[in-house]
Amino acid sequence: MTAFADSSVAPSVTTGPITGSRKVYTDSPGGLRIPRRRVELTNGEHLDLYDTSGPYTDSEATIDVHSGLPRLREGWGLEPVGGAVSQLAYAKAGIVTREMEFIAAREGVDVELVRHEVAIGRAVIPANRRHPETEPMIIGKKFLVKINGNLGNSAVTSSVAEEVEKMVWATRWGADTIMDLSTGKRIHETREWILRNSPVPVGTVPIYQALEKVDGDPAKLSWEVYRDTVIEQCEQGVDYMTVHAGVLLRYVPLTARRVTGIVSRGGSIMAAWCLAHHRESFLYTHFEELCQILRAYDVTFSLGDGLRPGSIADANDAAQFAELRTLGELTHIARAHDVQVMIEGPGHVPMDKIAENVRLEEELCGEAPFYTLGPLATDIAPAYDHITSAIGAAQIAWHGTAMLCYVTPKEHLGLPNRDDVKAGVIAYKIAAHSADLAKGHPRAQERDNALSRARFEFRWEDQFNLSLDPDTARSFHDETLPAAPAKTAHFCSMCGPKFCSMKITQDVRRYAEERGLSTVEAIEAGMQEKSEEFDEQGGKVYLPVVNP
Amino acid sequence: MTAFADSSVAPSVTTGPITGSRKVYTDSPGGLRIPRRRVELTNGEHLDLYDTSGPYTDSEATIDVHSGLPRLREGWGLEPVGGAVSQLAYAKAGIVTREMEFIAAREGVDVELVRHEVAIGRAVIPANRRHPETEPMIIGKKFLVKINGNLGNSAVTSSVAEEVEKMVWATRWGADTIMDLSTGKRIHETREWILRNSPVPVGTVPIYQALEKVDGDPAKLSWEVYRDTVIEQCEQGVDYMTVHAGVLLRYVPLTARRVTGIVSRGGSIMAAWCLAHHRESFLYTHFEELCQILRAYDVTFSLGDGLRPGSIADANDAAQFAELRTLGELTHIARAHDVQVMIEGPGHVPMDKIAENVRLEEELCGEAPFYTLGPLATDIAPAYDHITSAIGAAQIAWHGTAMLCYVTPKEHLGLPNRDDVKAGVIAYKIAAHSADLAKGHPRAQERDNALSRARFEFRWEDQFNLSLDPDTARSFHDETLPAAPAKTAHFCSMCGPKFCSMKITQDVRRYAEERGLSTVEAIEAGMQEKSEEFDEQGGKVYLPVVNP
Repeated sequence: MTAFADSSVAPSVTTGPITGSRKVYTDSPGGLRIPRRRVELTNGEHLDLYDTSGPYTDSEATIDVHSGLPRLREGWGLEPVGGAVSQLAYAKAGIVTREMEFIAAREGVDVELVRHEVAIGRAVIPANRRHPETEPMIIGKKFLVKINGNLGNSAVTSSVAEEVEKMVWATRWGADTIMDLSTGKRIHETREWILRNSPVPVGTVPIYQALEKVDGDPAKLSWEVYRDTVIEQCEQGVDYMTVHAGVLLRYVPLTARRVTGIVSRGGSIMAAWCLAHHRESFLYTHFEELCQILRAYDVTFSLGDGLRPGSIADANDAAQFAELRTLGELTHIARAHDVQVMIEGPGHVPMDKIAENVRLEEELCGEAPFYTLGPLATDIAPAYDHITSAIGAAQIAWHGTAMLCYVTPKEHLGLPNRDDVKAGVIAYKIAAHSADLAKGHPRAQERDNALSRARFEFRWEDQFNLSLDPDTARSFHDETLPAAPAKTAHFCSMCGPKFCSMKITQDVRRYAEERGLSTVEAIEAGMQEKSEEFDEQGGKVYLPVVNP
Repeated sequence: MTAFADSSVAPSVTTGPITGSRKVYTDSPGGLRIPRRRVELTNGEHLDLYDTSGPYTDSEATIDVHSGLPRLREGWGLEPVGGAVSQLAYAKAGIVTREMEFIAAREGVDVELVRHEVAIGRAVIPANRRHPETEPMIIGKKFLVKINGNLGNSAVTSSVAEEVEKMVWATRWGADTIMDLSTGKRIHETREWILRNSPVPVGTVPIYQALEKVDGDPAKLSWEVYRDTVIEQCEQGVDYMTVHAGVLLRYVPLTARRVTGIVSRGGSIMAAWCLAHHRESFLYTHFEELCQILRAYDVTFSLGDGLRPGSIADANDAAQFAELRTLGELTHIARAHDVQVMIEGPGHVPMDKIAENVRLEEELCGEAPFYTLGPLATDIAPAYDHITSAIGAAQIAWHGTAMLCYVTPKEHLGLPNRDDVKAGVIAYKIAAHSADLAKGHPRAQERDNALSRARFEFRWEDQFNLSLDPDTARSFHDETLPAAPAKTAHFCSMCGPKFCSMKITQDVRRYAEERGLSTVEAIEAGMQEKSEEFDEQGGKVYLPVVNP
């Protein structure tokens, strides 16, 4: 890790468990240790949650960012099959890898489902052999919807240390993968710090570094510069790479009459190159050579949507779908080389045009996992695009999108800071989980039910600790009712003691239960008791725990 | 306004135009002055927006909260038809009221569409004759999706002055109606201040005040106490009232096995009353008398969903739909009395169960306007329920819900403050506008297109001013690039100068346009020019406006 030697940076990262929970490890059938976040409840129960945060939230673990995370997957590598070392090659050959076993236990599904979905290309396991620090995860419509958090500095702001902390911070709150989109100085070094310390797969867009190598002039790019950059990043351990190989010369004119033209950085760079040389994109003409390189490391393709719409007006247009058709063609070429593939999607799409995006992607790209950026359901709310896009993301995930790339409140305005990263991750955990519920994921509703029961039973601490952000939920409650008694009060400041519907409902139930009847039977039996009884028992709903 | 005389409160409210826009008035065909918010753009164009903020954003207007707003609709009242003075009665009789004319001009639709939709009960115009201060608005699926903001103090927090400012603040950011849900002391006085100063219709839940009159004991409620409270509020000028007349004795048992029981305050109060007396709800048994009262003032029914689900687990269950069927029955009774009706809906509903709610409501309630609270698409994010519910709200509005009741970040945790009110309103403007786009509202996309063009042309100030929250958008941009040149720079800190896709796209277009060709023709013609030309003209995408 020579990059570290020269380095002046010394990132300090957030460690320790999330409030109200602790790291536990459960054994897989094959004896692998599966990390979970356990929330202990005040009623003696507990709930184990899917955990993306890595060793940073384990109070037993010692964290040293200079030596990096433990190399969990070291020695997991198997002999090549047919010359390939990819999860896809093994899955096709009927081989269950340790990554697949880890994932099956982590998702609570049958390992054969994991192998099958990878074998047919409907799911991918981004796991570069040179990145043994990652905890294996899967991206596919049959599994929990995943979210990605974008990091990376730009020429005008942010430091390496900041980006490493953003990575730890993003995974703490639930990012399943992160992308390092650095475009400024010290790209290689920033990436080295992130890779060695990331518990989740890391994606990149190699064209950014390639462009830096030619002083930011797209016309000066060449296949050779790009190829060497890809090899450099494969060697370093990048797990998946965005490649805008679908931006063909003949598609550029289709963007001429758009409201917002080309909004993908990689897409606009390749369009500029194609026009400058009036030649077909070298990413397209050299695609098979790219497959050979990625195959050797088991790096996953994330075929980029360089022509995605950048506004509601441009959604689902000819340019977007022309590129998607080409991505489908490339998908089949990559699979023939046993290289895993996912497909990137928009962007900005009104709700009525969202489902069509998923349908077409599945049809044209052989059901390769879809990985979308939002989409934003409207353009009119800069500073709130984590919300405009969570609306679109929840729906597109429900329709089958496997991974959602988050959007932060700073989208379109500036580089996100640490708080923006958290806001983006939380909004996307909401979108992803809402989709898991709508898709009927067998275990998704456990958490909703546990939290709702805690809410109904006034177990305030449990309600906070089961939420996506216990600290904020608790502080919002305490703003108006800070004192300790309020943590057990059968009301909150929203309605006050007399008007808490849940309190009244409980009185209603107690009324019946104290008579050894369920409310149902109580009513069905006709309930001849005089009304005074109810008054004595539960009719008086005022509770003297007032705490202004 | 005797309430004012005794009053010690002296609310100070927010006045002045929203940044980057000013109040203008356009004349309707009949000469009514229609308020609009005009955003002047730096390219000489302007965009007029639907404006809910009333005189408070008019720099010409003098605001005196003690004398209240000008009585805009004074003298608009027409002679009764068939003894009724409701917009419904006039619409049925083929009469176009000034309210209808105002609304047609405000929404940019034909006045006959307004009259027709009101006549068949698919739209309502909440406009109590005793509330002449309101600017007429309409709630119906054929019109812009509306949003409501809940206000009102509770027994444990908030003052009258705070609530008046929250009302002004909510309408400033786009609330189309507000509900005063006060349950603490000085209910009548708080409502008086809000009514006399509100430019939008005001809704209430009369059972709250009735319960205060019987010391918070549901069992002590009676038809007489309730009736007198309703008359008091009709006289004061309340425009629509939530009445939980569908919570029948026999439905209460259906909630016994729910995860969260009854979560509507009014619903739980009436359930407690029914059980205490083992009699049918007086709201149901006296419903026709209620119709007679509301008819005399043209107060609109908002039939409450007292048995709405309070968790994902309880969505679309027997209790919820049993009540909805009864609300349908009551809708037809109210219409027979020429009383306008809308129907309240959930609540907490997973995405896959949302459409069914709209379908059933329209079928059972004769297409009366649906007015939903969210719904939240998951229960696991307290402190972020403006987002969990905006996801559900956008979808249910797309399917035909006419008005969305906002949810703030404090939902389930405490009483919202001024900042929470704004966060709730903005999130719901996003949901409502996203639905207008998906429904293909003829003029909804104008604002998206205007903002996207400004974004593409790097008119930063226009992008900020066209957004839902210009102040926040501007401050987010300035956090990373504060200096003046950045307001004209052809990039932002997110990507930096070399990687701005929109900048590169413009270079690509200029390349062609400088040759007097559209990019399309340029390419189709084959483009024989040498690549050097592109390098000279636009290939060098770095722009020396760097401003770290």
